[in-house]
Amino acid sequence: MHKLVLIRHGESTWNLENRFTGWTDVDLTETGIEQAKNAGRLLKAEGYEFDLAYTSVLKRATRTLWHCLDEMDRTWLPVEHSWRLNERHYGALQGLNKADMAKQYGDAQVLVWRRSYDTPPPALEPTDPRCERGDIRYAGLAPEQVPLTECLKDTVARVLPYWNEAIAPTIRSGKRVLIAAHGNSIRALVKYLDGISDQDIVGLNIPNGIPLVYELDAELKPLRSYYLGDAEAAAKAAAAVAAQGKA
Amino acid sequence: MHKLVLIRHGESTWNLENRFTGWTDVDLTETGIEQAKNAGRLLKAEGYEFDLAYTSVLKRATRTLWHCLDEMDRTWLPVEHSWRLNERHYGALQGLNKADMAKQYGDAQVLVWRRSYDTPPPALEPTDPRCERGDIRYAGLAPEQVPLTECLKDTVARVLPYWNEAIAPTIRSGKRVLIAAHGNSIRALVKYLDGISDQDIVGLNIPNGIPLVYELDAELKPLRSYYLGDAEAAAKAAAAVAAQGKA
Repeated sequence: MHKLVLIRHGESTWNLENRFTGWTDVDLTETGIEQAKNAGRLLKAEGYEFDLAYTSVLKRATRTLWHCLDEMDRTWLPVEHSWRLNERHYGALQGLNKADMAKQYGDAQVLVWRRSYDTPPPALEPTDPRCERGDIRYAGLAPEQVPLTECLKDTVARVLPYWNEAIAPTIRSGKRVLIAAHGNSIRALVKYLDGISDQDIVGLNIPNGIPLVYELDAELKPLRSYYLGDAEAAAKAAAAVAAQGKA
Repeated sequence: MHKLVLIRHGESTWNLENRFTGWTDVDLTETGIEQAKNAGRLLKAEGYEFDLAYTSVLKRATRTLWHCLDEMDRTWLPVEHSWRLNERHYGALQGLNKADMAKQYGDAQVLVWRRSYDTPPPALEPTDPRCERGDIRYAGLAPEQVPLTECLKDTVARVLPYWNEAIAPTIRSGKRVLIAAHGNSIRALVKYLDGISDQDIVGLNIPNGIPLVYELDAELKPLRSYYLGDAEAAAKAAAAVAAQGKA
């Protein structure tokens, strides 16, 4: 039996301001730092050990991981960064306020942009200053690999190769893995692991900073999964995420 | 031409308390954090870019690196940890006060323990609670690879294989490398790079938190080397390191 732990970054400045974030590299709030440290304390108290951690190239996930490792006294663990674990790209919505957009376009349209499996938000123009194609951290990618927008289906399509080629073989080799990532890159993994349908994934929300444990069999099929700590608090936090796009 | 940057961690709690540290995993002081951030700001202001960073498995070096990367907005850079970049092991002196030892054994004896190239301090007993052989981060090593004491010659002997097998090939491949390490693991590298004799290395001190730049030719022979920022401040800081072992 393998154990895999997933953790969504703590609250970011744009979570707090209720703005669409996507690939924008915003930092954690003080609350987010505290959430990340709490996650580390919880993992330590429950006796979790890891051999390797994966995270995105965005600082809210990296810093969440660092705070976790720090609390666990495991700052020396190997860490792999990949853009494939980045948040879903939010296209031209990046930086805009979710409630403002709901007032302007209606709750239903915002829910489509936030949660539709295969309808992406309006795309960024490549000339938009918000476009990440000139960012040095993506210099190794072909320009067209850096998205201008993504629906969850697109995110699944770029997360899964990394799961299949990097993470899954590591877990199969017996290494204990921690992944610090984002709401939608984690939803992509959960959808795949639990075989959730394109319809049902719309209703799944991942709370900030609460470790999600998967117990996997030798074929990496889930035996069970659960949030560490207070289950009620986790459910409340997930419901709060679901409510973010309302006017 | 290749550029390599070495940085000794910022001031640690035991630097402040003037205690022999070695492999003991003490943290940075507030001053040490500020030194690390300053180093990052300096590297950023001077336009340095890196493809990869190396550090030890001790948190004062890792955290120095993290603060540097943070200030450079490069938290996504790949980082490799190795015990081979750890500080020199200080044996049975670990935790003891340098000035107290100088009072008890004399300045000359402490200078031998601190700076002799080939005379190690008294060894730890493997049963000493300070011995690191049970530490999970060294679980992959044979017990005898985890030292009970080291002179600089021993440190050179375990740093160089990592230089030769990991760091040097990376630099030769064109990658820009940052190394955040310790006074004596950096002295080991400097001794090797500059071909400093066993006698002359005794007088070389590395200040905390000041980037040391090496310009290397295609064979990785140094063309020149210099501290970034205020040269006088760097010399003063190195002199302060030299004075630590006086009663």
